[in-house]
Amino acid sequence: MNQERSIDLNCDLGEAATPEQLDVEARIMAYVTSVNIACGVHAGDAAVMRSTVQLARQHDLAIGAHPGLPDRDSGGRREQPLSRSFVQDLILAQVGELMAISQAEGLRLSHVKPHGALYNMSARDPALADAIAEAVAHIDPRLILVGLAGSELLAAGQARGLAVAAEGFADRAYQADGRLVPRGQEGALIHDESTVVSRAHSLIHDDTIAAIDGSLLHLHIDTLCIHADTPGAVRLAHALRTMFDDGGISAVRIDHAS
Amino acid sequence: MNQERSIDLNCDLGEAATPEQLDVEARIMAYVTSVNIACGVHAGDAAVMRSTVQLARQHDLAIGAHPGLPDRDSGGRREQPLSRSFVQDLILAQVGELMAISQAEGLRLSHVKPHGALYNMSARDPALADAIAEAVAHIDPRLILVGLAGSELLAAGQARGLAVAAEGFADRAYQADGRLVPRGQEGALIHDESTVVSRAHSLIHDDTIAAIDGSLLHLHIDTLCIHADTPGAVRLAHALRTMFDDGGISAVRIDHAS
Amino acid sequence: MNQERSIDLNCDLGEAATPEQLDVEARIMAYVTSVNIACGVHAGDAAVMRSTVQLARQHDLAIGAHPGLPDRDSGGRREQPLSRSFVQDLILAQVGELMAISQAEGLRLSHVKPHGALYNMSARDPALADAIAEAVAHIDPRLILVGLAGSELLAAGQARGLAVAAEGFADRAYQADGRLVPRGQEGALIHDESTVVSRAHSLIHDDTIAAIDGSLLHLHIDTLCIHADTPGAVRLAHALRTMFDDGGISAVRIDHAS
Amino acid sequence: MNQERSIDLNCDLGEAATPEQLDVEARIMAYVTSVNIACGVHAGDAAVMRSTVQLARQHDLAIGAHPGLPDRDSGGRREQPLSRSFVQDLILAQVGELMAISQAEGLRLSHVKPHGALYNMSARDPALADAIAEAVAHIDPRLILVGLAGSELLAAGQARGLAVAAEGFADRAYQADGRLVPRGQEGALIHDESTVVSRAHSLIHDDTIAAIDGSLLHLHIDTLCIHADTPGAVRLAHALRTMFDDGGISAVRIDHAS
Repeated sequence: MNQERSIDLNCDLGEAATPEQLDVEARIMAYVTSVNIACGVHAGDAAVMRSTVQLARQHDLAIGAHPGLPDRDSGGRREQPLSRSFVQDLILAQVGELMAISQAEGLRLSHVKPHGALYNMSARDPALADAIAEAVAHIDPRLILVGLAGSELLAAGQARGLAVAAEGFADRAYQADGRLVPRGQEGALIHDESTVVSRAHSLIHDDTIAAIDGSLLHLHIDTLCIHADTPGAVRLAHALRTMFDDGGISAVRIDHAS
Repeated sequence: MNQERSIDLNCDLGEAATPEQLDVEARIMAYVTSVNIACGVHAGDAAVMRSTVQLARQHDLAIGAHPGLPDRDSGGRREQPLSRSFVQDLILAQVGELMAISQAEGLRLSHVKPHGALYNMSARDPALADAIAEAVAHIDPRLILVGLAGSELLAAGQARGLAVAAEGFADRAYQADGRLVPRGQEGALIHDESTVVSRAHSLIHDDTIAAIDGSLLHLHIDTLCIHADTPGAVRLAHALRTMFDDGGISAVRIDHAS
Repeated sequence: MNQERSIDLNCDLGEAATPEQLDVEARIMAYVTSVNIACGVHAGDAAVMRSTVQLARQHDLAIGAHPGLPDRDSGGRREQPLSRSFVQDLILAQVGELMAISQAEGLRLSHVKPHGALYNMSARDPALADAIAEAVAHIDPRLILVGLAGSELLAAGQARGLAVAAEGFADRAYQADGRLVPRGQEGALIHDESTVVSRAHSLIHDDTIAAIDGSLLHLHIDTLCIHADTPGAVRLAHALRTMFDDGGISAVRIDHAS
Repeated sequence: MNQERSIDLNCDLGEAATPEQLDVEARIMAYVTSVNIACGVHAGDAAVMRSTVQLARQHDLAIGAHPGLPDRDSGGRREQPLSRSFVQDLILAQVGELMAISQAEGLRLSHVKPHGALYNMSARDPALADAIAEAVAHIDPRLILVGLAGSELLAAGQARGLAVAAEGFADRAYQADGRLVPRGQEGALIHDESTVVSRAHSLIHDDTIAAIDGSLLHLHIDTLCIHADTPGAVRLAHALRTMFDDGGISAVRIDHAS
């Protein structure tokens, strides 16, 4: 009893398009334990990937690939029909690129987390989830596959023999079925800092979070995502870490979790 | 004496933009022993990379990465100022991408050969050559670095502990100093098939080739390049292999050479 | 006395990247009198330009070009050094493209409003402002040049003999010097609907608006901008038109203003 | 009798990707009377368009738009399925862009000539030809539509009320049906200078040219195309003008022909 809860705190990085956004990305690294780096397709490029890897190394963070769809206009958020081979080529090319860059910096990739529409579609589509899991296993079977808690992606990863990590969100609304409320819908994003912190607390300590219809969801998560592209991102990251410290939660890199 | 000469016959592939060019690329694989695959930057994309890898596997060819500059309009042929970190990111990203795709197809990359302006600039610029060699060594020290016979690139590769392969061209004119006559200049490309075959014979058997000014160059090569993007490419490839057979030359994959 | 105030209500369109955003753009046309259409460089493409022109024609809106910088990742918002000829080529190419598309749909362009970084930089840089004004005058001297109230762009347009329209924002914070608070800074965007409506009322009726430091700015505007890419955009547009109706303000196309 | 024959000599420009190619483009302007300028889609960009327009003005050449398909990898040469609206948007956007740039340089566009796959497909497809002709007529009904002699494009242009110009090629092989032999096929391009000059002479003086099967084609042309992207292009251009002078042929801008 009284056992301390430990959890990974992750952030999607390498997506900055302006100097201001770049600054936020750099500052948020002080508060997270793992980063997911955009691989030059939905955002970023090789130079950004390398500098993000270097910053992550300074902060001793676990680094993972965050591959996305080739649609920079929507930032990889627009869903589209996807063939198995197209998706696998996307995953191989993006993870391979970041892997080589990381290796040149003396680091090993610890995980892969699909981005945007790829994340949402693979949460509910078993065939797409398996395509992604197979591609990841082909590159390196030691890679941890990160997906939405309860998603098809995690099931597919386990079926392919991969370690998986269940992700939760305190600043996104959930539907009663455990899916995220789509970004376009009212109430999808939760802006109030204290609400987000309180939701994170509930999620980590009690494995529960309130869905948008008021029902209570039961979710066990291994990693909590915070966003760098929302106003007040750095302040929120700080508030979450403070809550961790006060609540006996230890933040642990995704590849160091037991 | 009478020892048989063995040599690799390589071709740059994955650059086709039309169905006709794709057909030539597929047919030329019957005659070569190694292929250098464009990595989606100066030409190609992940799907083309994968299908070229698959075809190369069917023909049991050595596969290598053929990274180039991000300038599709000139096909990576326009020279430009290059910083060390920019070049290394380019190499890492492109080789890493092809490496992951090859691995998913069950193959290991055997070599890296820079393309176009990157090839020509690294032949004469020691700093650029070292930047490339270091990046290649970081990805996998077993990779063979391919460059122009007598080039700075080969020297840099050796200094970084890499195996290197000296390349020669029978269908390109040489300057008296051993460099290639730039493509823009008159006489740079040699179109006549029997001339090309005869130059290849001299290069392989006697380690000599006539320069554009009539002087005789001494060059020992490990691999002979043939181009898929010139008219009559398939016929030339066939003629070269016939000359090999008639002349006691055995064609050997670049990674199987002694 | 008691004279009715008339004003143009404009919106930047043709920037949608997802079906949800496209839907918002279509619905907001019911409330505005003029639209500024992205010209395929910072966002959009020829097909989107044409369909936006067609929708604008259905609503009988004035259509204008909204040229931006070639930087889709930041949506044209990242400032960068700009040569005079580069900027003029950008303006000519983008306005020319939309002009041809509009003409094929039987409409004439009424105005040009630079986008994003181009808008902000030309508000304060007289040389850049003149480069833009000259390019616009070269294309068609009847085009109205739209810029921030009090900006260098409006001065440059007048010096080049163009009609100009002074633009104001009710949902953006102003600095005491009349410039907009940069988007990256806290408080730059005003989200509360009733605050925005009240600021619009003050701006239109009294030619005044509160700056972020509490001081009162005096600005006379010809056109009020509303954004389609903020949450609640359609509801805000509706609220503004209701305020217009209740306050004796008539909304008039930018090219019909006296 | 003894009436002098006059003809336009045109060249496709604005497609250079290397400094060497740019130099050839500049030198060839001394020999032609009209230029067709790539509009930034299959090749080129706004800066190249503007500098090509400026050079053409110095040589007092007629300037036309040379719109192509959005496929830079093949230089707009790969055929693809095309919807009517997609093609019309392409034409409007590209011609509109060049028109605005030309206008800023004080010149009016005289003609439009589709490029590559668009040229070949519209030569044989009446629906595509009409789509192009309608778009051109919408932009400016004074524009001359240039197409292959005997093509559907010329018929469509006439049906839409446009002036048309029939184009011939002395350095391309013709099929017996009057179409060009596709570039991929053997013998499609004629490299020998004296053969090209002799074919041009026959085409201009006798309205005849030998097809690849030996049959004689009867073609009346208004403009002869020479290519800037073939080896020896400048020398060929010079040889053709010498033949013109010797043979009593006067070279006349496409918009000055009677």
